[in-house]
Amino acid sequence: MDNLNAVLDAISHPSRRAILDRLSRGPARVTEIAEPFDMSLNAVSKHLKVLEGAGLIHREVQGREHFIEFRGEPLRLVSSWVHYYEQFWSQHLDRFEDHFKAKRKRKP
Amino acid sequence: MDNLNAVLDAISHPSRRAILDRLSRGPARVTEIAEPFDMSLNAVSKHLKVLEGAGLIHREVQGREHFIEFRGEPLRLVSSWVHYYEQFWSQHLDRFEDHFKAKRKRKP
Repeated sequence: MDNLNAVLDAISHPSRRAILDRLSRGPARVTEIAEPFDMSLNAVSKHLKVLEGAGLIHREVQGREHFIEFRGEPLRLVSSWVHYYEQFWSQHLDRFEDHFKAKRKRKP
Repeated sequence: MDNLNAVLDAISHPSRRAILDRLSRGPARVTEIAEPFDMSLNAVSKHLKVLEGAGLIHREVQGREHFIEFRGEPLRLVSSWVHYYEQFWSQHLDRFEDHFKAKRKRKP
């Protein structure tokens, strides 16, 4: 529960979602993560701390290099939570479809 | 994109997720929503405003009564976003499974 809050909070910021997208394609150094964004290293570090708190990244120290790795598992909590609600938009689409089927039938 | 931020921010609070859960079982008056929670009407109203901003609820005025209705569609954005990341935990599980399969094979 607490972790779901942390994960949702972490992914609610577009920069943090962009960072996750980058890291999902492979580990990277902090400077490499900052590069494509118009962000200071300090701002990136803050975002990485939030992601780390939610368990979405892991720091791997190799000698003098720090690599940031993506961890996808915490996102399962989001997937499970949203799964229950899928019935509502599919119900909605079903009703929408029924409406058009009924309309089509009414035509000669 | 802006809406995904608003939706994720709205669902990141446990009280707002609890309110959505209640409303997913049918429309309710503000007082009815507040009842099971240890929250003031004022606090509930604030949460409802955040949910409304994200398009997750709709206010239906019937005479002097205000009913709050759940709207599931914005959660599709969350579902679509998280869908891409599902490959990461299933990959992880696959590796986990391979590990045990290999271990079993090694036994006589």
